[in-house]
Amino acid sequence: MKSILSFVVLLFFATFSKAQQSLNKNYKNDSLQIKKLADEVMVNSTAYKNLRMFCKDIGPRLSGSSNALKAVYAGKKMLELSGADTVYLQPCVVPHWVRGANEEGYILINGIKEKIKLTSLGNSEGTNGKLINAEIVEVQKMDDISKINVRGKIVLINIEMNPTYIKTFRAYGESGIGRRAGPSLAAKYGAIAVMVRSLASNEDDHPHTGATVYNDSFPKIPAVAISTQTANKISAVLQSGKIVKGFLKSNCKMMGTANSFNVIGEIRGVKFPEQIITVGGHLDSWDLAEGAHDDGTGVVQSIEIIRSIKAQAIKPLRTIRAVLFMNEENGGGGSKAYLQNAKQKGEQHIFALESDAGGFTPRGFNLDMSSQKEQVVKEWSPLFFPYGVYDFNEKGSGSDVGPLKEIGTALAGLQTDSQRYFDLHHAETDVFEAVSKRELDLGALNMAALVWLVSKYGL
Amino acid sequence: MKSILSFVVLLFFATFSKAQQSLNKNYKNDSLQIKKLADEVMVNSTAYKNLRMFCKDIGPRLSGSSNALKAVYAGKKMLELSGADTVYLQPCVVPHWVRGANEEGYILINGIKEKIKLTSLGNSEGTNGKLINAEIVEVQKMDDISKINVRGKIVLINIEMNPTYIKTFRAYGESGIGRRAGPSLAAKYGAIAVMVRSLASNEDDHPHTGATVYNDSFPKIPAVAISTQTANKISAVLQSGKIVKGFLKSNCKMMGTANSFNVIGEIRGVKFPEQIITVGGHLDSWDLAEGAHDDGTGVVQSIEIIRSIKAQAIKPLRTIRAVLFMNEENGGGGSKAYLQNAKQKGEQHIFALESDAGGFTPRGFNLDMSSQKEQVVKEWSPLFFPYGVYDFNEKGSGSDVGPLKEIGTALAGLQTDSQRYFDLHHAETDVFEAVSKRELDLGALNMAALVWLVSKYGL
Repeated sequence: MKSILSFVVLLFFATFSKAQQSLNKNYKNDSLQIKKLADEVMVNSTAYKNLRMFCKDIGPRLSGSSNALKAVYAGKKMLELSGADTVYLQPCVVPHWVRGANEEGYILINGIKEKIKLTSLGNSEGTNGKLINAEIVEVQKMDDISKINVRGKIVLINIEMNPTYIKTFRAYGESGIGRRAGPSLAAKYGAIAVMVRSLASNEDDHPHTGATVYNDSFPKIPAVAISTQTANKISAVLQSGKIVKGFLKSNCKMMGTANSFNVIGEIRGVKFPEQIITVGGHLDSWDLAEGAHDDGTGVVQSIEIIRSIKAQAIKPLRTIRAVLFMNEENGGGGSKAYLQNAKQKGEQHIFALESDAGGFTPRGFNLDMSSQKEQVVKEWSPLFFPYGVYDFNEKGSGSDVGPLKEIGTALAGLQTDSQRYFDLHHAETDVFEAVSKRELDLGALNMAALVWLVSKYGL
Repeated sequence: MKSILSFVVLLFFATFSKAQQSLNKNYKNDSLQIKKLADEVMVNSTAYKNLRMFCKDIGPRLSGSSNALKAVYAGKKMLELSGADTVYLQPCVVPHWVRGANEEGYILINGIKEKIKLTSLGNSEGTNGKLINAEIVEVQKMDDISKINVRGKIVLINIEMNPTYIKTFRAYGESGIGRRAGPSLAAKYGAIAVMVRSLASNEDDHPHTGATVYNDSFPKIPAVAISTQTANKISAVLQSGKIVKGFLKSNCKMMGTANSFNVIGEIRGVKFPEQIITVGGHLDSWDLAEGAHDDGTGVVQSIEIIRSIKAQAIKPLRTIRAVLFMNEENGGGGSKAYLQNAKQKGEQHIFALESDAGGFTPRGFNLDMSSQKEQVVKEWSPLFFPYGVYDFNEKGSGSDVGPLKEIGTALAGLQTDSQRYFDLHHAETDVFEAVSKRELDLGALNMAALVWLVSKYGL
């Protein structure tokens, strides 16, 4: 505990003392250019309007769906309007998972049957329309699946997100193991189905979906998420010594693959066009809601980088490419295709930035690059302070740009104020109305500033 | 421009180099105590539940109303439950302004009369139920009121909040002059009424109220706020050269004064009980909504300081006093009474912290104290970084603790991530549902940490 805190603080100061040394270099002119870009975004941004289009005119955009294809063409149009020099579609292959209709669930306590809300986990298999039922047994950590008798039962994997973690992604990563690996582990020990506590930081009645990953060695048993309220209710009854029976019916299944696209719009660099900077978010979303924060916001911010740089008549030295990735949620088909293309063409990808942490006020950039490159980025950090971005000490980037690490690309991810994110992430509440225009635009302007700095100085 | 940016950055580094020097002192033990307090708040906080009570069980709490009195007794009960050593009411006198029923407004363009939403400004006089009408003339800055002919007209004061200011309170302060001083200035030049563009950062159809201040030298003409959408619409028509006629009817009036209370709960210091630390928010709210962010959140955070310190069995060396102020919105009756009492009793108020910037994720503490005391607080700043608070460079505190400056109290205000605040501030959208439990609790825990540090070390 002590040592972790000290380490964080020391890191913090290391950043700042480094940053301090660079104050005299090109700082002043850069700050003026960034102020112009910032004003351009805060006054004229089209990100919010574009987000409304993705959320309200199109809606949910699950990979392989017709809506996902509509989003491809809408994104292409937006990139064209943003003034990108070239806009094109990049083919990719995505899994085609469908939820099907008539998902339903019940619990039976003391002879009383009560309807509950549930949602099949992405990529999971359903019950083929049959209402299956069994006694529910609860585990609060993964290890317990092998320790109690789950054979023939429905396992409630009830791992709460740790409320004491101030950075919510830490709690998501830690508790997420239940959703990702729980169904196959339960199947290994003979369970017939799994109910997972939603990965949600609040207590309400909205189940949150998300991908699960089956291990082919075990049966692919049905797996659903239930709301935190329902999970708490079942848990309380079980802990009082009573029996809870669960019923569930679903029609989801994996339908093989489908063809789809990444959408790419770029501004060609005037001096080093071969050096490519990628900035992106993902077009696809879960099917329960509008995919506003996840990740409509990252998509429209990426488009806004192109628009604002063009509107300011900036001619970047290096190539800036906005990439609207397909299939981040349940397969990564788009990011695989992007990497494969880069390798085939021998492209030089110097930097890639992802926005997939919700369209909330930015706080920093997570970095995944050599310590030498990290120092370069940290030297720029004072330029971001006037716009609320101060934290350059977290590691990481995002799952769409992540694969570019293989070809040596320096990676980054927008770090947001994600306190509200896991209230709505992958749930029906992730809608346009949950996004603040100013917060969205603040993210876009800080991203634009970082991308522009890399286009000027390289990395 | 350049010099301002450099100044901000230099200030930033000044803070951190100071902070760095203090790393070895009592840092480690303090960080452990603060972690315990933080966990206590993040796991067991009652702030959100208490907020629901103020918002949903009571509702709007305008000074002098029966709801405001209900809030007094609810706050007293909450402080008792929080474990405060003593809880008491402190009488104060507040203005009793009432909106009355049947506010309405119209605009007439091209012979077509259209209903518009409007809301009388707090403390303003109405039309006594008569539908008054006149041609609307627009100004976009205060100076223009004296330059155009406003005699017999309705003046639309259409001063937009500057979207390029990253700190939204700066835009609020600057544009707010129209609401505060516009009606009397327009009256001086013969206007019959004023419509003020709502102090809102978004474009929608919710008018935002707020207090105006009449100058007794001029007629007290009716003054209403209209939504940003309506203001934009009228402005566009006027700028096309057409005439817009405005109609408005209202029944608001000042009814003299009423008796009310501040609510105070304190933990007596075990070593220096005479040294008082105040932490507070305000109980009263505008009448249009639930007063969730303004300032139910500040009230329940202040109560949570008491609860969490008691729950952790901390015995503070100095006295910690949560004060739920009455009448921040339209008179400051509560804060005046608090200062007066302090002076009469010769109390020693060493520090006062206010939370009245919405219950959003905290980013820092604004400070208003001697530079020597500022340095003491800044030396503690590394203790707050793990909880998202890093900015100690803004000046200011809040209007309820502000008057304590007269008796030499060091002042501070919670600085929040206020990008969303002026979407809902003083409007019908400031409701419980707009508050995030985690954001609210993060504010409370950082406040608790600062109050605890002052209780330990003095200031």
